[in-house]
Amino acid sequence: MLEHGGNLREAAQRYGRDDWLDLSTGINPEWYPAPAIANNAWHRLPEPDPALALAAQAYYGAPQMLPVAGTQAAIQALPRLRLPSRVVVTAPSYAEHAHHWAQHGHTLRQVPYDALDAAVAECDVMVVVNPNNPTGATVPRGQLLDWAARLSARGGWLIVDEAFGDTGAQASAASQGASSATPEGLIVLRSVGKFFGLAGLRLGFVAAQPALLDALANLLGPWTVSGPAQQVALAALQDSAWQERMREQLRAGGQRLQNLLAAHGIRSSGSALFQWWPEARAEDFHEHMARQGIWVRLFSKAARGIRLGLPPDEAGWQRLELALTLWTKEKP
Amino acid sequence: MLEHGGNLREAAQRYGRDDWLDLSTGINPEWYPAPAIANNAWHRLPEPDPALALAAQAYYGAPQMLPVAGTQAAIQALPRLRLPSRVVVTAPSYAEHAHHWAQHGHTLRQVPYDALDAAVAECDVMVVVNPNNPTGATVPRGQLLDWAARLSARGGWLIVDEAFGDTGAQASAASQGASSATPEGLIVLRSVGKFFGLAGLRLGFVAAQPALLDALANLLGPWTVSGPAQQVALAALQDSAWQERMREQLRAGGQRLQNLLAAHGIRSSGSALFQWWPEARAEDFHEHMARQGIWVRLFSKAARGIRLGLPPDEAGWQRLELALTLWTKEKP
Repeated sequence: MLEHGGNLREAAQRYGRDDWLDLSTGINPEWYPAPAIANNAWHRLPEPDPALALAAQAYYGAPQMLPVAGTQAAIQALPRLRLPSRVVVTAPSYAEHAHHWAQHGHTLRQVPYDALDAAVAECDVMVVVNPNNPTGATVPRGQLLDWAARLSARGGWLIVDEAFGDTGAQASAASQGASSATPEGLIVLRSVGKFFGLAGLRLGFVAAQPALLDALANLLGPWTVSGPAQQVALAALQDSAWQERMREQLRAGGQRLQNLLAAHGIRSSGSALFQWWPEARAEDFHEHMARQGIWVRLFSKAARGIRLGLPPDEAGWQRLELALTLWTKEKP
Repeated sequence: MLEHGGNLREAAQRYGRDDWLDLSTGINPEWYPAPAIANNAWHRLPEPDPALALAAQAYYGAPQMLPVAGTQAAIQALPRLRLPSRVVVTAPSYAEHAHHWAQHGHTLRQVPYDALDAAVAECDVMVVVNPNNPTGATVPRGQLLDWAARLSARGGWLIVDEAFGDTGAQASAASQGASSATPEGLIVLRSVGKFFGLAGLRLGFVAAQPALLDALANLLGPWTVSGPAQQVALAALQDSAWQERMREQLRAGGQRLQNLLAAHGIRSSGSALFQWWPEARAEDFHEHMARQGIWVRLFSKAARGIRLGLPPDEAGWQRLELALTLWTKEKP
């Protein structure tokens, strides 16, 4: 399996401590307060609650959506819904896409963001993470819809992974306004885990045309989303006051993180939920932070660098600031 | 997708009522009382808790086990871990096995329980549901281990689905006593949903040799079991007092159900959690019960008949008894 952030058990084993300030994910550290779970939600076979898809459609503005057990489930399943295809995945980017599209007979090419437009003509499937994890690169919505149209004209797909799309200024590519259908060939992935801070739920949504959502549902099988997860997410998706407050709070947090890094000579990019920068001494930085009890995400391959999520509280911000100051002093 | 019990939304739509006595599943109606969930279980990416696999291994007596998002996840994945094979699945039986083994290039043959022994020589993979859902047929543990040895000698698998295996007198085929390894080629599926009444969790376990569990884990991907599900199941698996009391209670309940049916001229078989019988007028019986607000499981194909789960309380038993009495009177 690929490596990911949030792996605190590994951190504890390697460094023999368990008082981590975990900045290794881009998950909102202030999670949506889970409502009390109806007692029998643990008991019953979790039939899909139509209210959940409706709430997601309202929140994301998409005509049709399918709940899935985390976008990870969709990332793993979509390559199995096509005959061998020529696939372009953005790079550097969230590595699970390329990992799964490289299987099932597909031909994979990884392409940087500035070369995507030229690549549309030479592929059947394009996967764009928007905003990108970890670099924060974005593609305008109009551009995405144009690519989707060009790809679908020859039976292709544009897959847009908007896992970190809740805090940006741009509307979701899934949002279709008054239109009653998602454009053919456009597939949009949304995550409940990041913005709502509910990664433990295992819940995400896919927007696409109904025939594709049906095929995906059949492939994934019955009862994929647990009953309690459906209940917690329904409350979170309908709580627009919390969402609005949180969007402001996270934008401020992301800006504060970027400013803090800049004050220590680090020029970063990213989204409200994380900052990333290419770091020549990435392993050293990771090790330095770990010795301070701060668990950050080390990217040692294509996106060689460091990603930091938001500290959960003022004490966390101060721990981070101190560790950055020490790093600046140690730096040769 | 295949039809299953527990589909109360469909029942509500078809009959315009929502006061169902749901006997359409074999899930324990008295579920394990979920402990309070650590608040951040909804928040964090659910790393696998090693304590959960250990608790399962202690409860089932298996040397190694992998937690999965319900045995359904394993049922869907196992056919993808083999090159095209000759597969025998018990019939009539839980239909998801045959449904998934019929895909991925395999050759499927459905074989009744009394012909399994002869079929071992002519297949690469055999799937046995033990005790069987819905008929309650069982295969002795020694027989299963013999089949597993014969199959594995030529690289084959014996898959034993023990979803309803918690209340019988027989030890699990996964249980290996002092031995530190599951025999090669033996794969045992266990469900937390049925006996513990926690189908909403989406959690089951697979026992097999470590290499096969690793391959399965890789195929299923990261974070398959939600954080809260891990916590609830850990408590349930460790609570041997509850388990012992419940085993007694369910055996008594299953016997009471069988007696009640017998008193109305119905000769049934099954397990502690359900009774089943071949019913010539299956659709009529299902309709009769639905008109009484009782949702039973109609099998209209190979296992043509009716399956009933246990009523949750005394009022439920009385509703069932009344409806059976009316059925006996109506019967021509």
